[in-house]
Amino acid sequence: MKNKFLLLAFLLVTFTSLFSQQTLQEKLGYSKDAKLLILHADDLGVAHSEDSASIDALQKADVSSGSIMVPCPWFSEIADYAKKHPDADLGIHLTLTSEWKYYKWGPVAAKDKVSSLLNSNGFFYTDLDSLAVRAKPDEVETELRSQIEKAIQAGVHPTHLDSHMGSIFFRKDFFKIYLKLAHEYHLPCLINVNAFKLVYGVDVSDLITDKDVLTNVVYMVFPPGNIETRAAEYEKIFESLTSGLNCILLHAAFNDDEMKAITQDHPDYGAAWRQADYDFFTSDECKKALAANNIHLVTWKEVKDKLMQ
Amino acid sequence: MKNKFLLLAFLLVTFTSLFSQQTLQEKLGYSKDAKLLILHADDLGVAHSEDSASIDALQKADVSSGSIMVPCPWFSEIADYAKKHPDADLGIHLTLTSEWKYYKWGPVAAKDKVSSLLNSNGFFYTDLDSLAVRAKPDEVETELRSQIEKAIQAGVHPTHLDSHMGSIFFRKDFFKIYLKLAHEYHLPCLINVNAFKLVYGVDVSDLITDKDVLTNVVYMVFPPGNIETRAAEYEKIFESLTSGLNCILLHAAFNDDEMKAITQDHPDYGAAWRQADYDFFTSDECKKALAANNIHLVTWKEVKDKLMQ
Repeated sequence: MKNKFLLLAFLLVTFTSLFSQQTLQEKLGYSKDAKLLILHADDLGVAHSEDSASIDALQKADVSSGSIMVPCPWFSEIADYAKKHPDADLGIHLTLTSEWKYYKWGPVAAKDKVSSLLNSNGFFYTDLDSLAVRAKPDEVETELRSQIEKAIQAGVHPTHLDSHMGSIFFRKDFFKIYLKLAHEYHLPCLINVNAFKLVYGVDVSDLITDKDVLTNVVYMVFPPGNIETRAAEYEKIFESLTSGLNCILLHAAFNDDEMKAITQDHPDYGAAWRQADYDFFTSDECKKALAANNIHLVTWKEVKDKLMQ
Repeated sequence: MKNKFLLLAFLLVTFTSLFSQQTLQEKLGYSKDAKLLILHADDLGVAHSEDSASIDALQKADVSSGSIMVPCPWFSEIADYAKKHPDADLGIHLTLTSEWKYYKWGPVAAKDKVSSLLNSNGFFYTDLDSLAVRAKPDEVETELRSQIEKAIQAGVHPTHLDSHMGSIFFRKDFFKIYLKLAHEYHLPCLINVNAFKLVYGVDVSDLITDKDVLTNVVYMVFPPGNIETRAAEYEKIFESLTSGLNCILLHAAFNDDEMKAITQDHPDYGAAWRQADYDFFTSDECKKALAANNIHLVTWKEVKDKLMQ
């Protein structure tokens, strides 16, 4: 009997050890050196133009995931879509800024509970610096929690968390809250230790636990970008991807009156810049380039279901 | 000496008596039976399309006044215009509803201070009935006061108050708050006793004081309306106006992607309906019809400056 227990213990240890040696790709059911990619549409809920282009790209094309800005004027549209499409891979694009000059939004939490996050007009700050200087961490947590709760209440089944404009990666104490919420809600969250260090000068490596899923590469076309060479740029990125979990953050919207109005004085991240993403990621060229580079599209939902339970 | 005082007193009484016999038109500097008209653009701040069409109509055409929806996403745009154009005749379109399906807004006050005005998603109710049944008067006052204060803080010099969707005319206790705020801020507010009785079934006649300015006729093209006959409809109204202070509530916006998106499932009050107002009120036909009917355009600012001091 004792030997049986010892054998079982040995097998368990061996199995656990084998499992822990598995690459993230293998844990997700792919080959050891598979190149996995999440094609992720940011900024859902910001505008009807963004919602309709992104939904189109999610439904008809290869875009695998998206995330929702809960405080924005068109949140109800994308929440309704999420409710009607429970398998859609939609997370929360946690939002602490309101960056357009005239088209504004404020917090989900009561304003008097999160006043350190707001300018004198009751909106989120336009820029990351103001947020980093003034925001109190407990109020950041209150607001982020309110956004997640509001999304769930509206029928969204969030598959992951990430951060609009990377505002959460700008201060280490904000990032701690982000991790805490991800663990509490059993959700994967976008993490790329090197990128955070490089872009925001914040080293979060000591906060990462074995609960957290790290991305290999997170890529985004920074504005203004050359619209004419957008396809070539993404194809080059596809070619450069290596094995592991990679993520491309795209911004799909139409170059229409609504998106032009929102971005009227700020062509960076503007309507044409977003239309170019929509055009590439709904093209046959994109499909062919993904296949030619043996890239497997995956979702945050797969990560959540296979790695977070 | 006593006689001099008696004479002065007599003259004062006579003057006051003569003044009180003056019609509102005369008090404003017009002839006794002048037909005065405020051409008033509603819903500023709701969308860029509405802002740009209404500003165009205010600057280039005969539209004399407008009012601003402070809780809406594009409030900052019209507030900035108001700040840069301190003589523009802009009031506060006090807002307690968020009527579009997917394009939503909530209160200016902290949500926990005005929870009876909000649905479970933290937005104003879509309809007047929900508001009338659930709203607590003290929370209505808190929210309306917050809207006025936010507008002033953002640089708006409000010339008057009125009510989006007439939500304030729907309950007599709401109307009392409206009057109280108008008196407190020394602003005229839109009142038409007969219309409120007819449309909302609320008799406010016993609340009116000599501080309040009553309109003779308040007219609005109710949807769907026939766009083809819009000009003829307004011309008929011009012809029917009688002496006194009249008001036409119009809704100028462009029939563009943004306004179509907002009104997508609700063509009543939609983009084409608003474009038809813009087209008529910026036309030569409108100018000619106003002149042909001896109509004098006036502003709420004139009413405020000449009657409220």
